[in-house]
Amino acid sequence: MTAQNLSSVNSVLIADQLAQAHDFMLNQLCCADDRLRPFIDYIGTRQGKMLRASVLLLSGGLFGEINQLHIKIAAVVEMIHAATLLHDDVIDNGQARRHRATANSLWGTNTAVLLGDYLLSKAFVATASLQRNDINRILAETAATICQGEMLQNSCRGDSNISVEDYLDIIEKKTAVFFAACAQLGGIICGAEKTDCDALYNFGLNLGLSFQMTDDLIDIVGTENETGKTGGRDVENEILTLPAIKGIDFTKSQIVRYRQKAVSLLDRFGQTPAAAALKELAASITQMPL
Amino acid sequence: MTAQNLSSVNSVLIADQLAQAHDFMLNQLCCADDRLRPFIDYIGTRQGKMLRASVLLLSGGLFGEINQLHIKIAAVVEMIHAATLLHDDVIDNGQARRHRATANSLWGTNTAVLLGDYLLSKAFVATASLQRNDINRILAETAATICQGEMLQNSCRGDSNISVEDYLDIIEKKTAVFFAACAQLGGIICGAEKTDCDALYNFGLNLGLSFQMTDDLIDIVGTENETGKTGGRDVENEILTLPAIKGIDFTKSQIVRYRQKAVSLLDRFGQTPAAAALKELAASITQMPL
Repeated sequence: MTAQNLSSVNSVLIADQLAQAHDFMLNQLCCADDRLRPFIDYIGTRQGKMLRASVLLLSGGLFGEINQLHIKIAAVVEMIHAATLLHDDVIDNGQARRHRATANSLWGTNTAVLLGDYLLSKAFVATASLQRNDINRILAETAATICQGEMLQNSCRGDSNISVEDYLDIIEKKTAVFFAACAQLGGIICGAEKTDCDALYNFGLNLGLSFQMTDDLIDIVGTENETGKTGGRDVENEILTLPAIKGIDFTKSQIVRYRQKAVSLLDRFGQTPAAAALKELAASITQMPL
Repeated sequence: MTAQNLSSVNSVLIADQLAQAHDFMLNQLCCADDRLRPFIDYIGTRQGKMLRASVLLLSGGLFGEINQLHIKIAAVVEMIHAATLLHDDVIDNGQARRHRATANSLWGTNTAVLLGDYLLSKAFVATASLQRNDINRILAETAATICQGEMLQNSCRGDSNISVEDYLDIIEKKTAVFFAACAQLGGIICGAEKTDCDALYNFGLNLGLSFQMTDDLIDIVGTENETGKTGGRDVENEILTLPAIKGIDFTKSQIVRYRQKAVSLLDRFGQTPAAAALKELAASITQMPL
């Protein structure tokens, strides 16, 4: 299974809900001022695979029906993610993402920075209206932790002595806690037991680590044609990732290790369609280049 | 009265509360990771005049005692403001603010962008724990509107046909709604009547317009020595402001007009110390260069 046909998993269970989440996101962003329309439209048409929304929705699906709050929070996590991508592309000077030009390459740094700020603010507007401070807090803490991870990565730029521990700390903060929060929120919104929500958090954390290692591996060995992103950005930006620190084979072994740990944490939820879909998603987003 | 001795007004009524707000802000930002400490410390030592916090606290003071929620929300508005300043300096390529080097000039665009994101996220972490969705929503909406104003300003860059209406629309969104929200929140936190909160909103809006016009005038006629900021940034960044569109004398007349409108909106609150301090603050921050 490749990332491209991930939709075949989602179409079975959550295609409708993902579409609703996307619509909710666009509704939140719509703006009376026509002069801002091109920028808002850009966000709407740059929809990615909605991995984080998928993890949230499918985690909710483990406990029964996916509800409207799942869908709205799924939209919010995609807004936060889109904001971080806009700023990541500014920072890495990325020219292409998802086979299309980045906002900074189209309109410059200024617009990309402001558009990211706008998205992040609108994400918090959306959560404020949902009357769930517990969820708001998780989302805001997650956004802050992502920034911490990015700042750490930035401060380690060019450091050839970076350790595996440093690398793991950075990718946990910048990527894995977001997947962890999404899985946990899927359970929290269902009113699931704390032990189940904790298991989902750990599932997301391990999945996120495996996913980021895969992404870092692809950045080194993949081509833009396959990935839709400018390749070799990490090397160009002097960011040392696991394949550079410990080699490709070790990285592949760790991708498998963290993916297996993630999948094993789903055992407690039995053989439901949502559990199967989460496992398929895990396999899909950690698929390694040959 | 100059901006520099604004503290003489505040010291009478709200010096303690401003100090508490500053402490609360630093507590929110503190971070276990020593590698991030220089950046967090930078925020702590770059405390400005805390104008927005002052407007919020004094507006609360119109209705009696200033409480802990006022102080916490005053801290949050300063966090949001600090985030916007960090990104403004990236966008305008400003080298100095408050007589000190900007984050982007010290550490580059990347750190300044991420530090702003971190501050904004932490502001929403702080509000999420306060269990007041009405306040959260106002703060998030305000942050989004500021971004809209900045995006509009950015899209009007270099447009020599910009109208006074366009200019007013931009500065209302990027500056005045923030002062409006601060004044309004001061009342809302006291449980004040809606008509009073609306009057405070309009006070803040007119004050914010007058303040931004003053800032734009100073950018053209002031010196860095007086203002602490890199001067001439608007011209350098091809941003046409009111003095460039309609001349210095017209700008001065509008500064007076909006300031008077703001101050007149305080009449309903009588001759209290808080009302007097708000009027002094209004005079101070709209003081024009000779």
